[in-house]
Amino acid sequence: MPTMTAAQRRDQAKREYDAFLAACPSRRLLDRLSDKWVTLVLAALARGDRRYSELAREIAGVSQKMLTQTLRNMERDGMVTRTVTPTVPVTVDYALTDLGRSLQGVMQHVKDWAEAHIDDIEVAREEYDSRQ
Amino acid sequence: MPTMTAAQRRDQAKREYDAFLAACPSRRLLDRLSDKWVTLVLAALARGDRRYSELAREIAGVSQKMLTQTLRNMERDGMVTRTVTPTVPVTVDYALTDLGRSLQGVMQHVKDWAEAHIDDIEVAREEYDSRQ
Repeated sequence: MPTMTAAQRRDQAKREYDAFLAACPSRRLLDRLSDKWVTLVLAALARGDRRYSELAREIAGVSQKMLTQTLRNMERDGMVTRTVTPTVPVTVDYALTDLGRSLQGVMQHVKDWAEAHIDDIEVAREEYDSRQ
Repeated sequence: MPTMTAAQRRDQAKREYDAFLAACPSRRLLDRLSDKWVTLVLAALARGDRRYSELAREIAGVSQKMLTQTLRNMERDGMVTRTVTPTVPVTVDYALTDLGRSLQGVMQHVKDWAEAHIDDIEVAREEYDSRQ
């Protein structure tokens, strides 16, 4: 345990946690990254470019409104490109940028962790529930 | 680009994306991990054990209801331990388990990525907004 007083510990935490303050740009970015739809779009596009309609089919449970908003935010953040081809009807293709690919590598670890540890967590839940 | 037809690509994607289906346990776990309060609690506890009141002060913008619910879920998932000491008033301490520490290592990369790339994203946003 640290030898600081509680007040010192709080002060230090407050300084070092600036990235987590609500007003900090990186906290706002963390809010956006902590969005399962972003994670799922990144994973889908990591497999190759996708049309809007393909993403809508591949990502279970996403509404059209949510997918459109997620893609627009990701385009604005420089994570995906949106290419419109003037066919009839219009074709819209999405692809990862280098920045998006970089983030996808990080988020892949989160997905891998979830798949590797889901059994541990199910056991923990059963134990917790049996104690209640 | 793959030589599969669009239909084959969708079928393949559907099989391989099982982890992302709404009904899959690992998808539900991903939902839980994609919660910024979980990330922030992990980061706070990575610095050392914390009392409930310390977490409430360190994590900006979290409501008491949200913090209580987040900690209860994390205890149930086996990520944190909750130790009650019968002082007056009662003292409640939270600490990471090995499982929680393992997840924290993964989520630290997400936080690091956000801090490293926030400038790139701010530039992308300005460019996007100037094109609209």
